[in-house]
Amino acid sequence: MAADYMARIGRAQTEMATKGIDALIVGVGSDLIYLAGYPAHPSSRMTLLVVPREGETKIIVPVLEAPRVKALGIPFSVVTWGETDNAQQIAADLLKQHGARTVAAGDELWARWLVRIQNLAPGLKWEVGSLLLRELRMLKDAAEIASLREAAHRTDAAWEEFKSSTKLTGLTEQGAIARLTEVMKAHGMDSHGGICASGPNSASPHHSTGDRVIQAGDAVCFDFGGLYEHYHSDITRMVHIGEPDAEYRKVYDIVLRANAAAFAAVRPGVQCQAVDTAARDLITAEGYGEQFVHRVGHGLGLDVHEEPYLVQGNALPMRAGMVFSDEPGIYMPGKFGVRIEDACVCTESGGDKLNQAPRDLAVME
Amino acid sequence: MAADYMARIGRAQTEMATKGIDALIVGVGSDLIYLAGYPAHPSSRMTLLVVPREGETKIIVPVLEAPRVKALGIPFSVVTWGETDNAQQIAADLLKQHGARTVAAGDELWARWLVRIQNLAPGLKWEVGSLLLRELRMLKDAAEIASLREAAHRTDAAWEEFKSSTKLTGLTEQGAIARLTEVMKAHGMDSHGGICASGPNSASPHHSTGDRVIQAGDAVCFDFGGLYEHYHSDITRMVHIGEPDAEYRKVYDIVLRANAAAFAAVRPGVQCQAVDTAARDLITAEGYGEQFVHRVGHGLGLDVHEEPYLVQGNALPMRAGMVFSDEPGIYMPGKFGVRIEDACVCTESGGDKLNQAPRDLAVME
Repeated sequence: MAADYMARIGRAQTEMATKGIDALIVGVGSDLIYLAGYPAHPSSRMTLLVVPREGETKIIVPVLEAPRVKALGIPFSVVTWGETDNAQQIAADLLKQHGARTVAAGDELWARWLVRIQNLAPGLKWEVGSLLLRELRMLKDAAEIASLREAAHRTDAAWEEFKSSTKLTGLTEQGAIARLTEVMKAHGMDSHGGICASGPNSASPHHSTGDRVIQAGDAVCFDFGGLYEHYHSDITRMVHIGEPDAEYRKVYDIVLRANAAAFAAVRPGVQCQAVDTAARDLITAEGYGEQFVHRVGHGLGLDVHEEPYLVQGNALPMRAGMVFSDEPGIYMPGKFGVRIEDACVCTESGGDKLNQAPRDLAVME
Repeated sequence: MAADYMARIGRAQTEMATKGIDALIVGVGSDLIYLAGYPAHPSSRMTLLVVPREGETKIIVPVLEAPRVKALGIPFSVVTWGETDNAQQIAADLLKQHGARTVAAGDELWARWLVRIQNLAPGLKWEVGSLLLRELRMLKDAAEIASLREAAHRTDAAWEEFKSSTKLTGLTEQGAIARLTEVMKAHGMDSHGGICASGPNSASPHHSTGDRVIQAGDAVCFDFGGLYEHYHSDITRMVHIGEPDAEYRKVYDIVLRANAAAFAAVRPGVQCQAVDTAARDLITAEGYGEQFVHRVGHGLGLDVHEEPYLVQGNALPMRAGMVFSDEPGIYMPGKFGVRIEDACVCTESGGDKLNQAPRDLAVME
C-alpha cells in the first residue's frame, strides 16, 4: 500500500507542476486518507501533510500520535511536535525551505491552522487543494471501485433485511433510523444514521430526522449509507405505509423514470450537467420541474459528497472511473416527497449501478 | 433561546470592537452551535454565518437547508443560494458591503470556502476566530454548566453499569468499546466510541482501539465520552484484569494523587499552567516525569478539546465558569499505562468535579 500512496503523491506533484503550485498542505480528512492512508480524527492538535512539488513529503504530527502514525507504515518522514511547540511554525518553516510562493490548502483544512500558517508565512498565494486533487480523486482505481461496490452491496442487503423485518407504523423517525443503523452494523457497515422523513416531512429533501410517529398513509423516505473501508454508500428508497393514492403513484413513477433517464445518459464524454438534464427534462415535461429542487447527483467516494457534481453549469465530461449518485426527486410541500437514489459508476461502455436493491413502489406496515 | 444567541453575537461584536476586527465568518461546527444554535453537518454545500462588527448578522445557507434553518427560529436573516449560485461570492460581497478590512475566520471553517472567499475579496487581513470567541466559549454560563454536569453524570452512571455487567476477558478492545457505547446510549448519551487500550497498548496515550483480546494480567484504559444537548463528557478510568502487581499499584497511586493535586490547584486567578505543574511536580518527584508525556488537561464544552489548555506555557488565569479535564498519566512502554481523567469546573471557591465515578483501583474479570 505504501507504493500506492507514493504513486498518488507523485500524481499530485505532476498536477502541481502543471498548475504552477509549489506545495500542498493537507490536514485531517478524506484527502489525508487518500494520500497517506491515515484516517486521523479531527483534533485540537494539528496533523498536517506537506507535499512539495519537488522533494520529500513530510507529515507533521503531535508527538502523542507518532506511535500510531509510525505503526501505519506511512512512507513519509514523520515530524513530531511536543505539547509546548508551535506546530504551525514548523509548517511555515517547511514551506519557506521549499521556497514556496503558491500553496494549495487541502479542502478540509481548518482555518485555525491555515490562517496561522498564512500569517507566519506572509506573501504566499493560496489556492484550494481540490485544484490538484479533484482529478485524482474523481477517477477511482479498481480497488476503490471494489470498495464502493461492496459498500453498496452491503447497504442493499441491509435495506432488504430492514424492509422485511420491521414494522414502521408506530415508530418515530428516529426510532426507524436507529433500527436501520443496527441492521447496517450487522452487515459490517459503519453507519451514523441518515434521513428518515415521514408523511409531509418527506417533502423536505434534507429533513432533520425527528420524533414524528410514522402512521398509515405516510410516504416515508430513507436516505442513508455507511462506510466500508473508508468508502461511502449512499442510497435513497421510499416506502408507503398502506396503499398509496393515485397522486403518489404518479409522482413515484415519474421519479423512477427520471432515475432511469439520468442513468441512461451516463457514458464517457457526456457532460455532467447532461445527466442532470436527462432527469430534469423528463420531470419538467410531466409538469413537476419546479418541484425538483436539487441537482441530480454528486460524486461518492471517501466523502459522501465530492466531485463530480451532476448539476447545471458543470460542463465537465464524464470519464470512466467516476462514481456518483443518481437521485432525482419531486417534493410536494405539505403532502409528500419522492426521491430514488442509486450509486453508479461510469464505465467505458456506460453506467453501471452499484446499488441493486429493488426500486419498485414498496408498501409496508 | 433566540435572545441568548443575540446576546452571544453582541458579546462577539464587543470583542471585535476591542480587537479591531470588522467581521467574523463561521462555518459548520461548534462555533455555529454556540452563536446560532444550529448543529449543521459538514457538507459540500456551504453554510456560513457572517457577523459584522456593526449591522445585521446573516446566515448564508443552501436553499435545500432553508426550511430546516427557518424552523430553528434563528434570529438572523437567512440568505439562500441555489444549486448553480456561487456561495463564496455572496460571502465576499457581504464582507465588501460592510467595508471589512480585517476578518476573523471561525476555527473550523474549511479551507475550501476560506481560500475561495480570500481570493474573491483580496487584500483583507485574516485572523483566527478564536481570537474573538475563545473568551466567550471558555466562560460557560449556568445552562452550559448544567448540560456538562448532566453529560458527566450520565457517563458516570454508564461506566458503573458497564463495570458491573461486563466480563472483559475474551473481548477485543473494539468489542469492549462497542458494549460501552451501547450502555452509554441506554443512558441517553450520543457516543461514537472511545479508546480502549489493553495490556501494553495502554502505554500509548492515543492508542487506536483494535482487535487485541483482553486477557488476565492486563491494565485496561477506557477513555470515552459522549454528547448531551451538544455538550461533551470526557472521562478516563482504568481497570485491571485480575490482581495487579506492585508496580501497577504504585503507578496507579501516583497518578491518582496527581489527579487530586491538579484538582486541588484549581481556583480563579491561578495560571492554567500551574494546574499542570501541580500534577507534573508530584509525578516528577516520584521519578516518572519522563513518562507523563502530555498536558494535564484541556477545556471541554461543545468541543471535546477546546480552550483553556492546561499546559506549560499557558499563563492564562483560571476564571469561574471554565470547564476542563484533569487527566494526568504515566506511560511505561511495553508494559502498561495509567491515566485517570475527570471533567471539572472552576468555581469562585475552587474546583468542582463533574465526574464522580469511583477512582479506586478497580479489578475486573
